[in-house]
Amino acid sequence: MSTAGQVIRCKAAVAWEAGKPLVIEEVEVAPPQRNEVRVKILYTSLCHTDVYFWEAKGQNPLFPRILGHEAGGIVESVGEGVTDLQPGDHVLPIFTGECKECPHCKSEESNMCDLLRINTDRGSMINDGKSRFSINGQPIHHFLGTSTFSEYTVVHVGQVAKINPAAPLDKVCVLSCGISTGFGATVNVAKPKKGHSVAIFGLGAVGLAAAEGARVSGASRIIGVDLNASRFEEAKKFGVTEFVNPKDHDKPVQQVIAEMTNGGVDRSVECTGSIQAMISAFECVHDGWGVAVLVGVPSKDDSFKTSPVNFLNERTLKGTFFGNYKPRTDIPKVVEQYMNKELELEKLEMFVTHSVSFSEINKAFEYMLSGQGLRCMIRMEH
Amino acid sequence: MSTAGQVIRCKAAVAWEAGKPLVIEEVEVAPPQRNEVRVKILYTSLCHTDVYFWEAKGQNPLFPRILGHEAGGIVESVGEGVTDLQPGDHVLPIFTGECKECPHCKSEESNMCDLLRINTDRGSMINDGKSRFSINGQPIHHFLGTSTFSEYTVVHVGQVAKINPAAPLDKVCVLSCGISTGFGATVNVAKPKKGHSVAIFGLGAVGLAAAEGARVSGASRIIGVDLNASRFEEAKKFGVTEFVNPKDHDKPVQQVIAEMTNGGVDRSVECTGSIQAMISAFECVHDGWGVAVLVGVPSKDDSFKTSPVNFLNERTLKGTFFGNYKPRTDIPKVVEQYMNKELELEKLEMFVTHSVSFSEINKAFEYMLSGQGLRCMIRMEH
Ligand SMILES: NC(=O)c1ccc[n+]([C@@H]2O[C@H](COP(=O)([O-])OP(=O)(O)OC[C@H]3O[C@@H](n4cnc5c(N)ncnc54)[C@H](O)[C@@H]3O)[C@@H](O)[C@H]2O)c1
Ligand SMILES: NC(=O)c1ccc[n+]([C@@H]2O[C@H](COP(=O)([O-])OP(=O)(O)OC[C@H]3O[C@@H](n4cnc5c(N)ncnc54)[C@H](O)[C@@H]3O)[C@@H](O)[C@H]2O)c1
Ligand SMILES: [Zn+2]
Ligand SMILES: [Zn+2]
Ligand SMILES: [Zn+2]
Ligand SMILES: [Zn+2]
Repeated sequence: MSTAGQVIRCKAAVAWEAGKPLVIEEVEVAPPQRNEVRVKILYTSLCHTDVYFWEAKGQNPLFPRILGHEAGGIVESVGEGVTDLQPGDHVLPIFTGECKECPHCKSEESNMCDLLRINTDRGSMINDGKSRFSINGQPIHHFLGTSTFSEYTVVHVGQVAKINPAAPLDKVCVLSCGISTGFGATVNVAKPKKGHSVAIFGLGAVGLAAAEGARVSGASRIIGVDLNASRFEEAKKFGVTEFVNPKDHDKPVQQVIAEMTNGGVDRSVECTGSIQAMISAFECVHDGWGVAVLVGVPSKDDSFKTSPVNFLNERTLKGTFFGNYKPRTDIPKVVEQYMNKELELEKLEMFVTHSVSFSEINKAFEYMLSGQGLRCMIRMEH
Repeated sequence: MSTAGQVIRCKAAVAWEAGKPLVIEEVEVAPPQRNEVRVKILYTSLCHTDVYFWEAKGQNPLFPRILGHEAGGIVESVGEGVTDLQPGDHVLPIFTGECKECPHCKSEESNMCDLLRINTDRGSMINDGKSRFSINGQPIHHFLGTSTFSEYTVVHVGQVAKINPAAPLDKVCVLSCGISTGFGATVNVAKPKKGHSVAIFGLGAVGLAAAEGARVSGASRIIGVDLNASRFEEAKKFGVTEFVNPKDHDKPVQQVIAEMTNGGVDRSVECTGSIQAMISAFECVHDGWGVAVLVGVPSKDDSFKTSPVNFLNERTLKGTFFGNYKPRTDIPKVVEQYMNKELELEKLEMFVTHSVSFSEINKAFEYMLSGQGLRCMIRMEH
């Protein structure tokens, strides 16, 4: 019996309050409206961005909310006007969208779609400003337009990448945020050249994907920086050649790196969300040609401060969302590269260090908060 | 009778104290040492960087000093080891050098030579850490290694561009700093594409040369920003199409520009030295693809502050000295482009709005401080 057009009752993990464990609830998921699709989530993993908005310390609180944005699933039904997706399609919901019509979508350089770019404060669908989730009539807020911590979710068609159905969803799931973000930040934005030295700040999944991008680009030195020394062992497997723990030094880490590299690294990629790391990542690149790329999501009141002379001395600073990939155009191709073995599927598996059932989702938060492992895969149990 | 190897007694304009009129003095100029050349200055013009170090408000004071760095002259004699220059060569002394051997000189991207890059605090020659200028045995400090406010000066060979002797020195003189700096900041660093909108902050000689760079790149809109409305008339001749005076608006100028351009300009070039203008120039570029370039020399305690989200939203910020030109390799070619009429020599003349004899050099400072005209050419009278 088709569920299309019907309200679906299913399980979702609801964040009722900042920092309090999620509660698995029975929710009602309304049918997709115009330009929306309803997706049955099979796998979802936890990214640090979810944790920031759950803690709501440096971010605006919005509760109750269904978090989650790194996931893989199957289209259950489509709303009016949706022509390029149909029930049964394998998809990755993505936190930043692509309308294909605005100046950003038409630009070769940008993936910041005017209509569907990441918006962390929006808790509803853009079509009608309402939520598709409710519990006994009480609306529950969306997160990033994806809310994948639910057995079913409703997503704008512009935020859905249709991928090869042969691709294993439990593995390519991580391409829908962290891994593409880190890998793309290096290969699409920092663009190290063969032989370059690259510093990676933050050795979580995003940072290690950035390191992997440096490795495939032929970097000669990949310097990993983290406050958590337990990350270093794992990082070796991703090609990181040297480690710096800022806690081990009295001088600023940018100075330590400049001394290690005769003036600074050629490229750096910041994947921490810490404003101090952002400043260090910029100041540790070599003058004359160094390029630093910011990826971490800062707290809303953070201010980036540096001497303007650091720019004048011919350093470049940029930032990126989602590694500058266009979600609908580029991500299906990236999945193909894994299927063709141009990129290594085993590398994707290495990012998944933990796996829990949906009912144990709070464990994923504990692993991330305690800095254990990289990605925790959450298995939905339909 | 050759003066080679002899001390030359000649006139120089000495800055004895911060902000006090220069005094034309008879100075002794020692012969050039190893890798140095002594240059007879024929023309020199005043750049705002001279004024900052003369005022010594936001900069370290170093007096007595012979300022000046935008000039054209003829080699009088050469020191030991100098092989690619000889007496009689027409040259432009340049404030930032090129040793041709360090990693920066070998890099295609940088012009920040390790040995000879701009150093505003050094008052002596790098060879022996001593000055070549003295008055009755009292050493007078150098400025930027050029000190062109003297009939004769001693310069490191790496800071000397040898140019076509047919080039009119009174015109190409301005290529030794301001004009190359502004033009290069646009064409070598900001690199606008045909049809792009470009904002130029500061419409002095550097800013108008940047505007000219935007014009020859095919920019469709060139928005000039200055606090001094009297600059706007002059700026029209350099292709500036629209004007914004921050004083005319209650909102920040970056917001005014964003509203004029549907979200921001494609490129901006800051040529003011004001930290507020640097921040505005960055924040007024379009998200997704905008590139801002800093050129102005800030005060030493200035701090560049912005929300890191402005970077994350895919804006790029860079800085440049001397428009990323390598002084010895590139500037002779730029002079050739003027000689071949690939670039317009008349445009160079338009930058020279005033001309005074050496004895009237303090008038050049008055013109710049009161915001009159662009460059004041100072004619040496040998
Ligand atoms: N721009 C984007 O599109 C995008 C997408 C996904 C994630 N993110 C952001 O990327 C960052 C990394 O995400 P993740 O899931 O890999 O998180 P993670 O928590 O797994 O990894 C972050 C790592 O940074 C380290 N760290 C924190 N502060 C540090 C500092 N000052 N110096 C050095 N190391 C420091 C932590 O110890 C941790 O190992 C987060 O800020 C996340 O919000 C951004
Ligand atoms: N990076 C380099 O290699 C390099 C080389 C030469 C000059 N410079 C610097 O470039 C700058 C311009 O030099 P110039 O000789 O053209 O100076 P200038 O004084 O002729 O022009 C500067 C212009 O900026 C305007 N201005 C000042 N503050 C402003 C603000 N907040 N907003 C808008 N406009 C403002 C002034 O009114 C003036 O018209 C100076 O800071 C100079 O030191 C840098
Ligand atoms: Zn994420
Ligand atoms: Zn779009
Ligand atoms: Zn100058
Ligand atoms: Zn050099």
